[in-house]
This record gives sequence, structure tokens and C-alpha cells, in this order.
Amino acid sequence: MPKIITLPGDGIGPEVTAAAVQVLREVAPDVTIEEHLIGGVAYDTHGDPFPQPTRDALKDADAVLLGTVGGAQDSAWNLLPRHLRPESGLLALRKALGCYANLRPVRVQPGLEHLSPLKPELARGVDILIVRELLGGVYFDGDRKIDGDTAYNTMRYTTPEVERVARVAFWAAEQRRGRVTSVDKANVLEVSELWRRDVTALRDREYRGIHLNHEYVDSVAMLIVSDPSRYDVIVTENLFGDILSDLAAVIPGSLGLMPSASLGDGAGLFEPIHGSAPDIAGKGIANPAAAIMSAGMLLRHGLKRPDAANQIDRAVALALRAQPTRDLGGAADTQTFTRAVMSALESS
Amino acid sequence: MPKIITLPGDGIGPEVTAAAVQVLREVAPDVTIEEHLIGGVAYDTHGDPFPQPTRDALKDADAVLLGTVGGAQDSAWNLLPRHLRPESGLLALRKALGCYANLRPVRVQPGLEHLSPLKPELARGVDILIVRELLGGVYFDGDRKIDGDTAYNTMRYTTPEVERVARVAFWAAEQRRGRVTSVDKANVLEVSELWRRDVTALRDREYRGIHLNHEYVDSVAMLIVSDPSRYDVIVTENLFGDILSDLAAVIPGSLGLMPSASLGDGAGLFEPIHGSAPDIAGKGIANPAAAIMSAGMLLRHGLKRPDAANQIDRAVALALRAQPTRDLGGAADTQTFTRAVMSALESS
Ligand SMILES: CC(C)[C@H](C(=O)O)[C@@H](O)C(=O)O
Ligand SMILES: CC(C)[C@H](C(=O)O)[C@@H](O)C(=O)O
Repeated sequence: MPKIITLPGDGIGPEVTAAAVQVLREVAPDVTIEEHLIGGVAYDTHGDPFPQPTRDALKDADAVLLGTVGGAQDSAWNLLPRHLRPESGLLALRKALGCYANLRPVRVQPGLEHLSPLKPELARGVDILIVRELLGGVYFDGDRKIDGDTAYNTMRYTTPEVERVARVAFWAAEQRRGRVTSVDKANVLEVSELWRRDVTALRDREYRGIHLNHEYVDSVAMLIVSDPSRYDVIVTENLFGDILSDLAAVIPGSLGLMPSASLGDGAGLFEPIHGSAPDIAGKGIANPAAAIMSAGMLLRHGLKRPDAANQIDRAVALALRAQPTRDLGGAADTQTFTRAVMSALESS
Repeated sequence: MPKIITLPGDGIGPEVTAAAVQVLREVAPDVTIEEHLIGGVAYDTHGDPFPQPTRDALKDADAVLLGTVGGAQDSAWNLLPRHLRPESGLLALRKALGCYANLRPVRVQPGLEHLSPLKPELARGVDILIVRELLGGVYFDGDRKIDGDTAYNTMRYTTPEVERVARVAFWAAEQRRGRVTSVDKANVLEVSELWRRDVTALRDREYRGIHLNHEYVDSVAMLIVSDPSRYDVIVTENLFGDILSDLAAVIPGSLGLMPSASLGDGAGLFEPIHGSAPDIAGKGIANPAAAIMSAGMLLRHGLKRPDAANQIDRAVALALRAQPTRDLGGAADTQTFTRAVMSALESS
């Protein structure tokens, strides 16, 4: 019996995770679901944003469903030393699970083009998959310190790190339109020069059917807004991926529609990309679509149950039309939207 | 008599620089203008993208007007070792001039909202100034190498580097709407923690009239597209500034409309932000508006001649309506557009 760990976290995390769990129980009733702490609430309880009981629980998990972590800008958590802050719990979790490839589908739902900040003719039909390297670059290790008046961070990549995430991108492109754009800053950074070299060599060795091109990160930031349909799969390093995947996420018009999957060698991590939205936490009005779609990605990539995943995707698409939430210009609250998903599932 | 050095560079650089020089001679006939080599053409002539004769000429210059550098993706220049490539000439030039603050105004011209990839109601009235730190961070110095299977770059900032560029942002905000958004990734990077600390301290010490807030780079990448009017002045480090300023530059709808100024302790550097566009180089169809507007910034910031600068801005705005170039949906070529600017100047 597969075991899923849920980590609802902070802010609206518990509300949207509860909705996703309700849906999971419906389409995968045989799965065991166990809840644990992460982020600010974990710090408040255990003095650690990624506490030992949570670490232990992950050992025999098949997949992890995360809510959101972190508080408001002026939250007391932000006054803690960096390693005790909620976000550090998230970074430590990614590392513990070995999730090196963060997958973020960016799809404009037909009929919902009007939600996009882009002109509808640019938004229509956009279907991009961003693959972000999640365990390397300037985020982890290396020399990092503030030393009086000087601060340092180190950006670092190794060939095996580049190859394993590029493999995920090539594999995903094979299921899609067969095109990968690798993003770097090779005109300035040695790290990007290695990245470009290794991605190219891997394609030449093992993925000759894939069309690969390389673009600079500043140019992609422009083109993803002015001509988003040119992209199929985008693969890039951690920091560029952080920026570009959030940027691309605005195209569909609401972060409430954006799920993600982080894959590695062990259990995968699935989470909505929106933040903890402390301003609306506890009000029961958060859009749970992204959390529910993340549960869909969990079934697809984590438990290899594509049928159940497709069921969820169809039910969410119906519910978005029937009961749009406030971020989509509708009036449905979390419960109402979730009920709409449930009834679409039951009648399917 | 003020002395200006022009560095037309590669691709369409010479064409748009020639147009800007024509305009400069009209509004500032007393200025001496001297042309030198940079980028790929400088490598081809001297084996160095920033050759000694150019370095020497800068010594007594009051301002520098740059065209564009670099070739096509598959250009032979890109096969050279990094320090000989055209872009390295540009980086070396910035360093030699000590230009630490790159100013990029992003303004949607009234009546030209339809050019924006954003919905017109979002594009209307956007008026942002991006101040990018240009001599530090991961771009220069520090440990940087490829060592077999591992590559490194070092991101580094010091308090004096942060303060001098923040000062430019606060000063600019005083002439504008009094608001500065400082952009970092302080939830992950020590360098950003120093950045945030030093920007805040400087505001508290010397610019109490300015409203300062801090935002994460991934969040700004979203908000600059979904809600651009929230920003007045944005200040950020080199790499984030590279990405965000290019991103913001798409809002007005054509890179052909975007000038820039790089200021420091000596002569300033003024350049259009578009690339060398090798595909249209030599055809006489490039839009010279950004180069001409950069000449305007040169007069304003470099030679302290605001009246001449205003004259240019007004003439360009008229010419954009009378003779739009191809990138703006019109038919005017470089010459025709430049003539429209000249006649607007003469009749003003
Ligand atoms: C909270 C932060 C550390 C995190 C990151 O930068 O990875 C977030 O922005 C994300 O993208 O999940
Ligand atoms: C060509 C490149 C080195 C340069 C940079 O990254 O600074 C360019 O993108 C720019 O913004 O002027």
C-alpha cells in the first residue's frame, strides 16, 4: 500500500492541502496518508523548520504532498537566523529527498486566456514545461558568508548534476513536442559554459531525436513574455529556474492554477507554486486548484497512476468553469470549489 | 569643448550610432565627436575586443556613446576564448569607465500601448526606472573557473559597492515619485542579506523621505508583468538587474525604444539596450530611436544639458508617430526615421 506524507505547512497550506487530500482519497482510496510538520509551524512546535519526526517519516514514503511554507514579510519567523526560517525547512526537505528536478507545467487553459496579463492572442495555447535544477548552483554549499563589509556566495555545478536534470528535460520532451531550450548565461559565467557543454554532449550522445537550442537567461525573460509559444521544454539551473518559472507562472493568469513536481532518486515532492498568502489564511477562500493538480502530478509521477491523474485534471478543468474562485474572477470559496471537483470526479 | 567618444561596434551598431551622431551634431554643435573600435570589429582589427587605442581615447572623454557589440549565435567570435569575445570588450569598457550604475527607463509612450505584449490596461502609464549595479556580483573577479567536471563562479558584494549604487537609486527617486524597491534573494543568499542591510541603513541615514521596500527577485519577475504600475525605481544587483531590466524592456513593445545610461565616477556610457541584430545589419532598416534617446541621456546625465535632452525626447516622440519603423508596425527605414527626428528638431 503506497504511503503519502502530507506537509501542510503555513498560511493557506493546511486549507489547500486538506482539499487535495479529499480528492486523493476519492481517486486512490487504497493509499495511506500521514500528516507531518514543516516550516514555521514546525519551528513553533519543535524549534526546527524541518524537524526529526518529519525526517523519520519520509524514510518509507512513496511521495510527499507539500502545502506552503513561510509567513508575512513582517513575520517573527523572518527575524530568526537563516537556517531556522521556514524557507530553510523547504530547502532542507528538497535536499533530504534528493529532488533535483523541479517540473513546472505552464498551460493556459482553453477559454481562460482572458485571465492572462498578456494579450489573449499571445496567451492562447501556451504549453511550456519548465525543468529547474533544484539542488545545486548558488543555493547550496560552497563558500557562503557575510564577513564584515563583504558577502559571498558560490555558484557551482558538476557534470553529473547537469546531466541528471538534463535527462529529465530530454525525457519530458520526448513525451511532448520534442524541443528543449537550455537557458544559461554562458557569455558571462563559467558555470554556464560547463552547463552548455554538458547538456549538448548528452543530447549528442543519447537524445539525437531532440531539438536542442541554447538561449541566454536575459533573452528568455523577454521572449517568454513577448512570444511564449516558441517554447516547449525549458531546462535551466536553480536560480535562473526560480526566476523564470515564477515569471512564466503569471502567463495563465493566476498562481492558483500552477502545480509542481520535484523528482529525484527517491520519493517525489509535489506542491502548488503559490506562496502561503498569510493575508487570506484561515478564511477558507484560497483556490485549492494548484494543490489538487499537484496531487494529480503526485499520482502521475510519484505513484505511476496516469489514469487517476487524468481524472483529476479533467475534474479540475470542469470545476474551474463551474465554480471559479475569487482569484479567477468568480465567487467560489475553497469548499465550494473542492465540492465541484468531487462531483465532477463522481460523475466521471 | 566637451569630447564624446563613439563606439559603434558590431551589427546594426554603426547604423544606429550614425543616426544618433547626426542628431547630436544638430543639438550640440560645439561638441567634439571621435569614433573608436569596440567588440568584434575591434578584435578583427586589433586582436582585442577593447583595444589600447580605444582605452587611450577614453582618458579625456566626457561621455561615451556605444552602439552594439557581438555577432550571431554561430559567429566565429563565439568560438574565441571568453576574454576575446565581443561581450568581454563591453564588460572591460564598463570596468575601465567605472560605470557602476546602469539606468534603464521603461516608459510606455502614450498612444503606443497597443505595441505592448501586455494588455493595454496594464501597459498604460508604466514609468519605471531600473537601476542595475554594473560592476560587481557574479560578473567580475572572485573565484571563477572550469576545473574538469566542476565549474565555479563567485557572487560577491561589499558595502561600498552597495551604497554607491543605492545612492543613485535614491537620488533618482527624489526626482520621481519617491519610491524605491530593492530587489534581492535574501531568503537564500548571504550576498542579498548584506545588500538588504546596507540599502536599508543608507535610507535610514540619508534618505528618510524615500519610501523603500524590499522584494524577492522571483516575485518581482511576476509582478513586473502582472502589475507593472506598482513600481517607481527598482534597484538591484548585476545579474538580477540583467534579467529584470531586459524583462521590463518588453513592456513598451519594442527594444528599439529603450535607451540606457551607465554612470560612475568618470565619463558615463550611453547605449541602446537592443542587441546587434546581425539578421538586419547593413540593410538600413534598424530603428535608431533607442540610440538617439541614448544620445539624449548622454546630454542629460553626461553633459548636464537637460534642455537639449528634452528637445531630443520630444522630437523622437513626434517621429515615432510620424514615421514608425518596422518593429513598430510602420514602414520607415533608419534614414527616414532620422530625417523625421531632424525636422522635428529644426521646427522646434
Ligand atoms: C522560498 C524559496 C527558498 C524558494 C526557492 O527560491 O527555491 C521558492 O522561491 C520556490 O521557488 O520554491
Ligand atoms: C552582453 C552581456 C555581457 C551583457 C550583460 O549581461 O551585462 C548584456 O546582456 C547587457 O545587459 O548589457
